[in-house]
Amino acid sequence: MNENKKQTPLSALGEFGLIRRLTEKIELKNNSSEKGVGDDAAVLSFPDKKIVVTTDLLTEGIHFNLMYVPLKHLGYKAVVVNLSDVYAMNAQPRQITVSIAVSSKFSLEAIEELYSGIHMACEKYGIDLVGGDTTTSMTGLVISITAIGEADAEAIAYRSGAQVNDLVCVSGDLGGAYMGLQLLERENEVFKVNPKEQPQLEGYDYILERQLKPEARKDVIELLNELGVKPTSMIDISDGLSSEILHLCEESQVGCNIYEDKIPMDTQTKLFAQELNINPIVAALNGGEDYELLFTVPLADHDKIKKEFDFTIIGHITEKGNGANLITGSGAAISLQAQGWNPLLKN
Amino acid sequence: MNENKKQTPLSALGEFGLIRRLTEKIELKNNSSEKGVGDDAAVLSFPDKKIVVTTDLLTEGIHFNLMYVPLKHLGYKAVVVNLSDVYAMNAQPRQITVSIAVSSKFSLEAIEELYSGIHMACEKYGIDLVGGDTTTSMTGLVISITAIGEADAEAIAYRSGAQVNDLVCVSGDLGGAYMGLQLLERENEVFKVNPKEQPQLEGYDYILERQLKPEARKDVIELLNELGVKPTSMIDISDGLSSEILHLCEESQVGCNIYEDKIPMDTQTKLFAQELNINPIVAALNGGEDYELLFTVPLADHDKIKKEFDFTIIGHITEKGNGANLITGSGAAISLQAQGWNPLLKN
Repeated sequence: MNENKKQTPLSALGEFGLIRRLTEKIELKNNSSEKGVGDDAAVLSFPDKKIVVTTDLLTEGIHFNLMYVPLKHLGYKAVVVNLSDVYAMNAQPRQITVSIAVSSKFSLEAIEELYSGIHMACEKYGIDLVGGDTTTSMTGLVISITAIGEADAEAIAYRSGAQVNDLVCVSGDLGGAYMGLQLLERENEVFKVNPKEQPQLEGYDYILERQLKPEARKDVIELLNELGVKPTSMIDISDGLSSEILHLCEESQVGCNIYEDKIPMDTQTKLFAQELNINPIVAALNGGEDYELLFTVPLADHDKIKKEFDFTIIGHITEKGNGANLITGSGAAISLQAQGWNPLLKN
Repeated sequence: MNENKKQTPLSALGEFGLIRRLTEKIELKNNSSEKGVGDDAAVLSFPDKKIVVTTDLLTEGIHFNLMYVPLKHLGYKAVVVNLSDVYAMNAQPRQITVSIAVSSKFSLEAIEELYSGIHMACEKYGIDLVGGDTTTSMTGLVISITAIGEADAEAIAYRSGAQVNDLVCVSGDLGGAYMGLQLLERENEVFKVNPKEQPQLEGYDYILERQLKPEARKDVIELLNELGVKPTSMIDISDGLSSEILHLCEESQVGCNIYEDKIPMDTQTKLFAQELNINPIVAALNGGEDYELLFTVPLADHDKIKKEFDFTIIGHITEKGNGANLITGSGAAISLQAQGWNPLLKN
């Protein structure tokens, strides 16, 4: 698509020139960002707050395929997945550092496209890009992002706080990102066989957006705060519902019953799963990359949660001895398994 | 060397199993580390302090060659280079996050070896490993480390504070790490031609250690504090003296005169440079990876600095119009050029 655009080799700028180019327009927005890019380290200030720190490492060919993921979307998503971890602590992200390693196949214009997505996410979520590293890789693209956030001490929601009888809730709907990936991979296979074939993506805009441009649930944190609900435990759904609920149960030393027919899924997710002969529930349980929030609240908060369109109560916390179960439509209890996205098992 | 040792494939553990294995023995040492590995984010607390954050991304084949860098040394060095950036702010590192991407060629034992070096550096510098990401790469090893430190607001030393007439000082000696790398590369070439040939490393232990197991200058920060000297500006020497002094001058809007015959170099550095017909001063100016500290102090602190064996006054800050110059033994002024290590120019 970019055949006619100018492509500047990175060697024309060098490391410092590239860093200058990518960071020259940054204006720090947060009071906590005292010094951003341009020294040995960024300087931050959070008087009277707790600080949360999370980091992700994304590698080409494992976490993304540049055949069908536009660089701008990739930059945006790389930020969002980190912010999601900060929100999952019931905290507010304030800063990120972005490190990239690129091979010589990337032009300046390609890297600027990646950074335009990064900057767009920073703008949308009110985050400052305060540092990073820009270097070379022998092969593909590597992106490493660290996000820093703040929270009042009493607000922080750990994975370990779920109590017996708490309600298990999720925001939004699940399985869409996974089905979006299946769609992109299918069309990529078609393209490889016949490059002139137009991809068949019509009618699937929702699941495509779930895969290519997910959002972090800043609004969920704000809504919970407005409702006066403090989750007893919380985690973001990056590896599929099964894997995440098992983390909550393990860290909280409890069990749970999750009701299959309560798990929220979009119509497009279900339709495309049927088209591929995939059970949609499998996409929700094991698909991953939805970046919704899974949280538990005391039973006393039932009415506050119930009336919110975007929250779904999918089950409840039990004694540990009960185990972590999926209760099917017919009432059978199936032990949940962590079959989430596990890159190391792919080797 | 490890042919007889058990090699466990990473797929036998999976991502979560590997993380558990690598982090199970961690005990948090710092009061500021409230929650480490095991939630969506680490939770830190620094009441009344400024926070500094720095990050580095290292990729196989670019930043390290596993043909001659032992994994334990690599882990140690990967931590040290980040701590060096924290000390260069006149701050104390407290936490790191460590993300790695590995290909299937790595065994559990290899990754444990890498982490043993990481843990050793944490132990030595009093740092807590509080988070990270463990994932897969299509090809080589990728290591991304973020370090977090703390400092009193008035203590922080930026690159931008150098004043005209300030003294320019360095800790330790320069060029050794670069000559150590030359030695390792020479012996690696010999090994490739004749694998039975024993490497000729005797008598070069100092430059080898400078390359393979550098230390961050925690002691320099402590000494400056004891002396009651607050550097007006500071930077760590990771890319060679030329590049770093140019950063200081640019950020401080000043010039400098650096005296060639004052630049501290070890005898082994000079001898091995002569053996390879390299001008040793080039190794100091452009070699990189020494991780010494370059700093400026007011002229009034001359006597305090002068008596310290480990500090060398190598020049002074001038008006910007003077430029940044190397004054040779014969008194000629040569404009300093940033020919430091620039991975992007290697493409």
